[in-house]
Amino acid sequence: MAVVVHQVARPQGWPSADQFVYVEVPTPVPGPGEALVENLYLSVDPYMRELMDFAGLGVPMEGRSLGRVVDSRAPGLAVGDVVLHRQGWRSHAVVRPQDARVVPEEPGVPLTAYLSVLGGTGLSAYVGLKHVARLAPGETVFVSAAAGGVGSAAGQLARLLGAGRVIGSTGSAAKAAHLTDRLGYDVAIDYTAGDLPGRLAAAAPDGIDVYLDNVGGDHLEAAIGVLRERGRIAWCGAVGQYNSAAPPPAPRNLYDIVGKQARLEGFLVREHRHLQPELEEFLLPHLRSGRVVADVTIAEGLDGMVEAFLTMLRGGNTGKMIVKV
Amino acid sequence: MAVVVHQVARPQGWPSADQFVYVEVPTPVPGPGEALVENLYLSVDPYMRELMDFAGLGVPMEGRSLGRVVDSRAPGLAVGDVVLHRQGWRSHAVVRPQDARVVPEEPGVPLTAYLSVLGGTGLSAYVGLKHVARLAPGETVFVSAAAGGVGSAAGQLARLLGAGRVIGSTGSAAKAAHLTDRLGYDVAIDYTAGDLPGRLAAAAPDGIDVYLDNVGGDHLEAAIGVLRERGRIAWCGAVGQYNSAAPPPAPRNLYDIVGKQARLEGFLVREHRHLQPELEEFLLPHLRSGRVVADVTIAEGLDGMVEAFLTMLRGGNTGKMIVKV
Repeated sequence: MAVVVHQVARPQGWPSADQFVYVEVPTPVPGPGEALVENLYLSVDPYMRELMDFAGLGVPMEGRSLGRVVDSRAPGLAVGDVVLHRQGWRSHAVVRPQDARVVPEEPGVPLTAYLSVLGGTGLSAYVGLKHVARLAPGETVFVSAAAGGVGSAAGQLARLLGAGRVIGSTGSAAKAAHLTDRLGYDVAIDYTAGDLPGRLAAAAPDGIDVYLDNVGGDHLEAAIGVLRERGRIAWCGAVGQYNSAAPPPAPRNLYDIVGKQARLEGFLVREHRHLQPELEEFLLPHLRSGRVVADVTIAEGLDGMVEAFLTMLRGGNTGKMIVKV
Repeated sequence: MAVVVHQVARPQGWPSADQFVYVEVPTPVPGPGEALVENLYLSVDPYMRELMDFAGLGVPMEGRSLGRVVDSRAPGLAVGDVVLHRQGWRSHAVVRPQDARVVPEEPGVPLTAYLSVLGGTGLSAYVGLKHVARLAPGETVFVSAAAGGVGSAAGQLARLLGAGRVIGSTGSAAKAAHLTDRLGYDVAIDYTAGDLPGRLAAAAPDGIDVYLDNVGGDHLEAAIGVLRERGRIAWCGAVGQYNSAAPPPAPRNLYDIVGKQARLEGFLVREHRHLQPELEEFLLPHLRSGRVVADVTIAEGLDGMVEAFLTMLRGGNTGKMIVKV
């Protein structure tokens, strides 16, 4: 038997476990040109909360997965291959070659890297820092939600891209310590301790050049406050606002953008998938050497998928949240 | 005798005439390497209101002027030459060659063009549309404060740069008619009639690609609302907010920047002075042919300088406000 997770109701604000059901189904059988994949790891991402507002009900939740081919009638997909695909929250999937990418298994590069620092969150951080904000060597970078999926990649990537100083904000003292110990951050701010603007200014006495924004609201306002002339803000999300009816409050100092000749630019990683090979070429040597880590929180078992998703929305993960099936 | 206008007090909110004095002084005498200029036209600009908050008191207000050399001990400046300089609100100025630029007098190109469509306001519009927003042929453009100095140049420039549709907003029905009759706008919105978002959406049924923002606040919010994917906002000022203690309210829909992958960028024209020759090369043929007009409101007499400035702040001008000395 196989298991799929369906969304069956829409959330009002924060989602809850009763909006999902685990459904047992017969293990699917691949047809001609198809392969059966037994999933190993499932990606759990903040954007899935946004999907819950308009995705179909009674169908599997969408998402990226990593699994092993256990039966194949497809050229190019051999039994034993590990593949990336997008068939969402389920134990087994039937894939066609054009919908699945075989990833290598090699020492030093954990498979979970393909769902984290080499996955959509790593690509978000890379695109935001390099292609949207155009981070230059020596510049000071600030990252919000720095211990999350995007942020855990962003600190390390900023370092590799030559940033002079990397500052992250996160929601607990323990996560702040993790940022500086493991993830390339020079300074970490626990924003729950209050006075974010003052503490950001103290962490960046000469201001910041680049802000990778996962939060909006008060973080965006604090970042604009310390932004240097011609600073760039790459904005990819508003984690923690997805469960609110209202968008994050707009920064009261937005007009400073003019005097600072600054740039605020939004981006969606799905429009930058063509940069995936560039990201891998850039990062794989550093993963192999151990200079970069795939920072993940792994929840065990498909039956813990919903709980892992809710935990991630509450910020209970450090690094990318992944479910091991 | 010569006359200079001094600021003698700081405004709280709207400035008033009693914060200025007209001072009679002996006509200055040029020293070696200097020339005496009798001013013909003085530029009146919104940014001068910002200067009033921190400029020196008891000295002439800063500003661009156009005058004729009446006495010269400077190589390169001949009696009779018309020069542009930055000696501010006064009837006569002593200039050195490096601080003055000789401008040609030629048929079809009024001297006032050098303080309007070829001046700082024209350059603002050009830089904002072409270099910040990177307007592409066929795109839809929205300009706020469209009958002002920057806006009166922006409509015509957007047209010349190949815009498919040019929409302007302004503060009266008469000015709206002027925008479509004379200044290259396809549609003009009188925002005082209310429902700016609805009327902008009606004017741009397929959305806008570029917004040249002179206003911020409600205009910025309305523009973000109708912005198309990958739209660009070039933000150069907040006319009408300069007299308010608070900055313009931030748009409540700012977070739409992310989903629309849009860009909001501030700029200061003074950092783009190197593009002046490019602007002139681009515009002069169109001025000579009559396709582009230097749209100006001319107030007569240096003794009307303060009143012209206050009138401009209240939106009483169409096109660039200029005082004829």
